Amino acid sequence: MEEKKIPYKIYLSEDEMPKAWYNVRADMTNKPAPLLNPATHQPMTAQKLGAVFCDELIQQELDDTTPYFPIPEEIRNFYKMYRPSPLVRAYCLEEKLKTPAKIYYKFEGNNTSGSHKLNSAIAQAYYAKNQGLKGVTTETGAGQWGTALSMACAYLGLDCRVYMVKCSYEQKPFRREVMRTYGAQVTPSPSNTTEVGRKILEQFPGTSGSLGCAISEAVEAATSMEGYRYVLGSVLNQVLLHQTVIGLDTQTALKKYGIKPDVILGCAGGGSNLGGLISPFVGEKLRGEADYQIIAVEPASCPSLTRGVFRYDFCDTGAICPLAKMYTLGNGFIPSASHAGGLRYHGMSPVVSQLYHDGLMEARSVEQTSVFAAAEEFARCEGILPAPESSHAIRVAMDEAIRCRETGEEKTILFGLTGTGYFDMVAYGKYNDGDMSDYIPTDADLQRGFDSIPKFPGNE
Amino acid sequence: MEEKKIPYKIYLSEDEMPKAWYNVRADMTNKPAPLLNPATHQPMTAQKLGAVFCDELIQQELDDTTPYFPIPEEIRNFYKMYRPSPLVRAYCLEEKLKTPAKIYYKFEGNNTSGSHKLNSAIAQAYYAKNQGLKGVTTETGAGQWGTALSMACAYLGLDCRVYMVKCSYEQKPFRREVMRTYGAQVTPSPSNTTEVGRKILEQFPGTSGSLGCAISEAVEAATSMEGYRYVLGSVLNQVLLHQTVIGLDTQTALKKYGIKPDVILGCAGGGSNLGGLISPFVGEKLRGEADYQIIAVEPASCPSLTRGVFRYDFCDTGAICPLAKMYTLGNGFIPSASHAGGLRYHGMSPVVSQLYHDGLMEARSVEQTSVFAAAEEFARCEGILPAPESSHAIRVAMDEAIRCRETGEEKTILFGLTGTGYFDMVAYGKYNDGDMSDYIPTDADLQRGFDSIPKFPGNE
Repeated sequence: MEEKKIPYKIYLSEDEMPKAWYNVRADMTNKPAPLLNPATHQPMTAQKLGAVFCDELIQQELDDTTPYFPIPEEIRNFYKMYRPSPLVRAYCLEEKLKTPAKIYYKFEGNNTSGSHKLNSAIAQAYYAKNQGLKGVTTETGAGQWGTALSMACAYLGLDCRVYMVKCSYEQKPFRREVMRTYGAQVTPSPSNTTEVGRKILEQFPGTSGSLGCAISEAVEAATSMEGYRYVLGSVLNQVLLHQTVIGLDTQTALKKYGIKPDVILGCAGGGSNLGGLISPFVGEKLRGEADYQIIAVEPASCPSLTRGVFRYDFCDTGAICPLAKMYTLGNGFIPSASHAGGLRYHGMSPVVSQLYHDGLMEARSVEQTSVFAAAEEFARCEGILPAPESSHAIRVAMDEAIRCRETGEEKTILFGLTGTGYFDMVAYGKYNDGDMSDYIPTDADLQRGFDSIPKFPGNE
Repeated sequence: MEEKKIPYKIYLSEDEMPKAWYNVRADMTNKPAPLLNPATHQPMTAQKLGAVFCDELIQQELDDTTPYFPIPEEIRNFYKMYRPSPLVRAYCLEEKLKTPAKIYYKFEGNNTSGSHKLNSAIAQAYYAKNQGLKGVTTETGAGQWGTALSMACAYLGLDCRVYMVKCSYEQKPFRREVMRTYGAQVTPSPSNTTEVGRKILEQFPGTSGSLGCAISEAVEAATSMEGYRYVLGSVLNQVLLHQTVIGLDTQTALKKYGIKPDVILGCAGGGSNLGGLISPFVGEKLRGEADYQIIAVEPASCPSLTRGVFRYDFCDTGAICPLAKMYTLGNGFIPSASHAGGLRYHGMSPVVSQLYHDGLMEARSVEQTSVFAAAEEFARCEGILPAPESSHAIRVAMDEAIRCRETGEEKTILFGLTGTGYFDMVAYGKYNDGDMSDYIPTDADLQRGFDSIPKFPGNE
């Protein structure tokens, strides 16, 4: 196809936005392993999951054969409020790097949640509403997911209860205020409102909380209140499914202008954004229609793909959730206090893990000072202040573009820019003051994490 | 014209974006009065202004006959990085208000400066660069303008020095960090770096500063350094000229879908956003091509149009800048500490003032608690967390829509949504806690302000 003049930003029209989510599992030869009941080590049944999750979402979670799930009209209407998100040609970055590479990024941050999280939040809230529930509970660390969920619930008139890791609750009061503005009830975790919270407070009186603990509290709250279910913002198959609007949008925009990316990359914490971006392209690969180099970028401080093991492990540190087969550092691994809160997760989505295991994608890890250097350079020429999480992808995209300058290759690089950094200025301040350091876990640190992975036959 | 199906958001293509700014003064019968030299009360000459402002910008400032100024290509390319901004149909708000009115808003907040300020910042930085200058100085209160200017300067490789009102510098450290990330040098004002700053510090040792003082410092810094000029983010004719991209974009989008607004409104502090939005529509009115009801919305705590007088007054509280003929509360008027920092200005742009004086537009004032109530309602159904300043327009747009519900009128209401509130969460927190109050100046308060307006023949 003849190359058309590429605008700075490609916006799809409403008619061109996807009408169905794409389920990459349908095209995978090796399906992601099923969630296991930690007591029996048998696959979790829909019935068992129904105590925690909404019914329709469980169907999406368990279905690995249906390639497309229609997006209900009410969700598509919500998407129209902040989507289509632009596919941006990074002309200014290319010029600054003096690279022959062409760089594109799919920008998901132009909404009040500040990230791609809204894509799944509205879907999960919609199905909860549809099931006649009163509300949902969840946990949030850095706050993007909690914000997104509170926005979705406000829109649908659903109650929203967020357990926010106590140190974030105290250090990020502005994120908390956004959630409150959207009517959510935000509780610092651990709290006195749940049994598990009280137990943890008794055991560790001064604790500032953890994501694992907040998950446990949110799950307990959901299962102990009539008309509530628990929702999660990453890792799960259903979340990746909803996030495929990112990749489907991108695919349509690229096709419209006859652009074929050589490299596709994104940051990976739990895998929701990366999985959503790459799924349709991985589908092409799996069906033998096209080939792409796909790269997951993770922090060197929490390297689940590059240094983890492929095992069944708990999704939470409290070890009450089902077991998922994934690349993991162990549910007991404690990542250092990096500024990319959204990437501080010990595991990786089963879908992304399986694709990585099968050699359909690569992974790289990067250190946070080099990530902030890339973020600043990007901000100054592209005009967007990126989230620390998203900046991991910027770092590797820039490295690839610089390599192209050296080799003369005219590669087309596509990356996902998941969010903005407006609530991360403490981190930027540290970087501006030259006061930021890197942390790479030692082999002994990793071993301590691996020791927390449950041992049972077939899980070695 | 037959009405087409209106999408949630109308994005223009790059080709449809304006290639020239529109100078409404060319169509005005009564031109805005010229700036006066405060010493002689004679019109400021281009030569005299040249010590403070860039040459090309002075031409734009003084020219009230040329209807269009071409937008240089480099500026248009920068615009493409964050524009076109969407014209949004507020379907969800309409539904929530159960109004027969149709509501549209032009959203200028989807960029890292968080507001429309970038439209003029890049223009002013461009002309400074073009003149071979090393850098620019400015003041900032709430921080949007300083952020926008630092972004524009980073893009062009120009030095940027921002005097930030000391209380904002301390209370809004995150805004300050954004500017630093863009390489700007940010100084709390009053400071020891200028003569006027030292004088003020000596006189008022504990002062937390004011916009007027910061202007004085920025002007002194610009005129005392080789290769620097001063730039301003509102009030001036040149700023309104650059901001007409807002109105021109809107006009094109409306015409494309055959939409004719009945009411057009926006918040007004110095008048830059409102002036930019309404200019092309006022032009149609002035040329007898169409009629619109146009409303400026200002805070009841700083009501320059609704309770001010039309006089020559200083643009700054330091009384060192030229005199402008405008609606003013007096350069000595001290607005209460409202949360809409961008609207706390004693005067109003001469263009807007003249249009208001000539009956081409109306003005209304609103109180801040009702503004935050509107902001929250808007955020919950439209998904955007608005800036407190912008929310003044939301308040009146909603009031108009509610009136339509009562009368059954199917009016089309258009308002400018200038920015996002991500750095205003302290204010939202106060509102969420029920801890926000209103303040309306008494007649005696106003009289004290009026007493500070300079008296000379013809200025009564």
